[in-house]
Amino acid sequence: MTAERDFVEANRALLHADLDAWLRIPSISANPAHAADVRASAEWLAEAFRRDGFPTVEIWDTAGAPAVFAEWPAAEPGAPTVLVYGHHDVQPVDPLELWVTPPFEPTIRGEQLFARGAADDKGQLLFHLLGLRAHLAATGRDTPAVTLRFLVEGEEESGSPHFAGLLRQRRDRLAPDTVVVTDTGLFARDFPTTTVGMRGLTGCQIDFHGPDVDLHSGSFGGAVANPLTALATLLAALHDDSGRVTIPGFYDKVVPVGEEERTAYAALPFDERAWLAGPARSRAAVGEAGYSTLERIWSRPTAEVNGMWGGYTGPGHKTIVPSDAYAKLSFRLVPDQRGGDLRAGVEQFVAEHTPPGITATLHWEGDGVAPVRTPIDAPQLAALVRAMERSFGRPVGFSREGGSGPEADLAEVLGVPVVFLGVGLPDDAIHSPNERVVLPMLERGAEAAAYLWTELSSPGPNLPRT
Amino acid sequence: MTAERDFVEANRALLHADLDAWLRIPSISANPAHAADVRASAEWLAEAFRRDGFPTVEIWDTAGAPAVFAEWPAAEPGAPTVLVYGHHDVQPVDPLELWVTPPFEPTIRGEQLFARGAADDKGQLLFHLLGLRAHLAATGRDTPAVTLRFLVEGEEESGSPHFAGLLRQRRDRLAPDTVVVTDTGLFARDFPTTTVGMRGLTGCQIDFHGPDVDLHSGSFGGAVANPLTALATLLAALHDDSGRVTIPGFYDKVVPVGEEERTAYAALPFDERAWLAGPARSRAAVGEAGYSTLERIWSRPTAEVNGMWGGYTGPGHKTIVPSDAYAKLSFRLVPDQRGGDLRAGVEQFVAEHTPPGITATLHWEGDGVAPVRTPIDAPQLAALVRAMERSFGRPVGFSREGGSGPEADLAEVLGVPVVFLGVGLPDDAIHSPNERVVLPMLERGAEAAAYLWTELSSPGPNLPRT
Repeated sequence: MTAERDFVEANRALLHADLDAWLRIPSISANPAHAADVRASAEWLAEAFRRDGFPTVEIWDTAGAPAVFAEWPAAEPGAPTVLVYGHHDVQPVDPLELWVTPPFEPTIRGEQLFARGAADDKGQLLFHLLGLRAHLAATGRDTPAVTLRFLVEGEEESGSPHFAGLLRQRRDRLAPDTVVVTDTGLFARDFPTTTVGMRGLTGCQIDFHGPDVDLHSGSFGGAVANPLTALATLLAALHDDSGRVTIPGFYDKVVPVGEEERTAYAALPFDERAWLAGPARSRAAVGEAGYSTLERIWSRPTAEVNGMWGGYTGPGHKTIVPSDAYAKLSFRLVPDQRGGDLRAGVEQFVAEHTPPGITATLHWEGDGVAPVRTPIDAPQLAALVRAMERSFGRPVGFSREGGSGPEADLAEVLGVPVVFLGVGLPDDAIHSPNERVVLPMLERGAEAAAYLWTELSSPGPNLPRT
Repeated sequence: MTAERDFVEANRALLHADLDAWLRIPSISANPAHAADVRASAEWLAEAFRRDGFPTVEIWDTAGAPAVFAEWPAAEPGAPTVLVYGHHDVQPVDPLELWVTPPFEPTIRGEQLFARGAADDKGQLLFHLLGLRAHLAATGRDTPAVTLRFLVEGEEESGSPHFAGLLRQRRDRLAPDTVVVTDTGLFARDFPTTTVGMRGLTGCQIDFHGPDVDLHSGSFGGAVANPLTALATLLAALHDDSGRVTIPGFYDKVVPVGEEERTAYAALPFDERAWLAGPARSRAAVGEAGYSTLERIWSRPTAEVNGMWGGYTGPGHKTIVPSDAYAKLSFRLVPDQRGGDLRAGVEQFVAEHTPPGITATLHWEGDGVAPVRTPIDAPQLAALVRAMERSFGRPVGFSREGGSGPEADLAEVLGVPVVFLGVGLPDDAIHSPNERVVLPMLERGAEAAAYLWTELSSPGPNLPRT
């Protein structure tokens, strides 16, 4: 036992009370109807930082949702500055009927807490509040061992459209030596890992317009273009028979999966059958030929249809040739792809798959999110691994995340290494009904954070390069 | 001028008043929420028949929506019996925002009356009421020259699922020598035609199920099957590059388009450019290679996607691999196809296009509607042509309808020729927003009906076979 662990275990009720309060705020950034809730979420967090002693707490407005900034300087003038990144917005909740308990009524069942945002990302930010109390109590300090800054944005689930601009605008206030990202997870509960890479993301909507009105399928069917059939044909052509994306130039900047990477992934305790039955809730591992499931998720880009609709979708049937069809697509990117690189190829692809009688409109969703990699030889990564190994009591491995966030902006705009302290688990059902967090994982996160500020203030030996 | 025409022109206000009353009832049979409106529609019509002197008027309940039966015997014992068929239900009205005036607030602009059901089919049934008054007034009779029976069903826009059963159950009460269908139209306003064939219809819904929950497209995308992509691939495969339907056995029972038929269609004054700009509201004539537009609509079967949906379709974007995807399909049939013949082929097609990781469920929508042809040498067709030529003052040609109805059941169950007296126009926008009827067309229909009962009571020379 350590003083940090003792404090965390003795004060878990503080964490539970904060979870219960914050998770009741439906801060869904994708839906404009929830804009006031996103602001209420920011205000709740700002008040929590003030309550816990941060001398500087500000709400930073953007052209979209507000971010929260908090700062607590170390007493020592030469202490390093650490910026913790997270987000206070959450995913939409539909289909609502699949939730066992309502998404914004946090419910503890056993060691799990169920609510939208429990793992992604409110629960993980809250472990930092408990971790900082533990750090101060265990070390007997009045201030953190590092100058600690938090930047908690409100648009991560909407692709962080204003985050890079905010970073550029506030660069002088942020100015860290290290960024600690808290929005990821472990490979497995008994196999702690830290993330050293994430995929990027860009997305668009395709609108296909056929007849100017819905037409009677008897009077016209067979003689005019059906936009649903045309759009289905486009979507079907997105992948070839081997599962490769057919958009022109799509793979041009993709760093191939190397033998070293392939060997490292193969060494992880990945049970594909358990993964299918558990988190993936699926009946087959399906994807690009020649790659393993982990390679497909971590190191290969995708073209995914997130939604499609058109024509009559109500009860009974309506015999029409519909006027319009729509699809929402997103693309996961890997180093060194950038969202902007894809646009010309997607535009060409859409044009080539727009048949006579159809007009196409392509809407891009913001600038997208770049992929990111952490330098394996950064001393900050070594400090993080030491802190995690003390908290988890096991060796810490390296993994990647298939998901996307603004980590690349943090790295590029702020010019410092980005490391990942996250304690989500693969079956936390983030972005799905019945999202949950495992409460003991939050306690391990709090303890690791308590150690991390000490470790970063007195760097030890680097990890060997792997 | 004839006495019949004089009467129609002098009494058009009766027709307008009936249109205004009946078209206010939203008798949408496809939506269970409108069941009470469909019944109110039947009751309104029954009362109109009683008001006009029909000695027998009954509402016939079915397992679905009610039909209306009315009878007015001829005084002469040997007079033939004519059954007029129509329907009192209407199509759904969405997208509502495209209507210039509300669909159930009948509005006259110039010579057009706009309302859902104006042409399909309430307006056309109402011309019969005026036509019968004209017939009686002009001939000085107290009873029609034929024993006149009406059967007006309430489920035509839902595929008439209970109509064949109703015909079988009530065969002895119906027992006509001729069926006159009033649910079709003319080739053009100045080119009157009568229909001698209609396509059949059958439909189904395909449900594709992938992951058991919506998955985070970052954490899982690229490694599990996406049901939207899979369903799009199935729908894209429904047609080959030449526009032919690829379902196994789909064309097995199709009567080929003969040279005579091809020549007859080519002789019609069909202006494809005007058709695209007008009723089709489209930018290209698209369909099966090797066939003209009229051949594609009248004589070739189709596989049409009427609706498709799945995943996230709200504002913003949601980066998921969705759990489910759905499509509603319908098939227009031509002689001698039957809906039941297609099922095995569609089931095989769906099975062959259900990839690993996806489970498929296929729901058929009722038993479907058979295609129908009128015997060209039937004396009843000759009588109809004479009546129409007197009313329209022009030669009457033959056309077909691409749409579908229960006419095949009428022909098969009742065992008599089915002829078509309909005055809809190609740009009436039936099944679309802003459905309308051209009021002078209804007057031509009323006049033709007034003549028709006289013509059918004293058959003249048959038309030459064409």
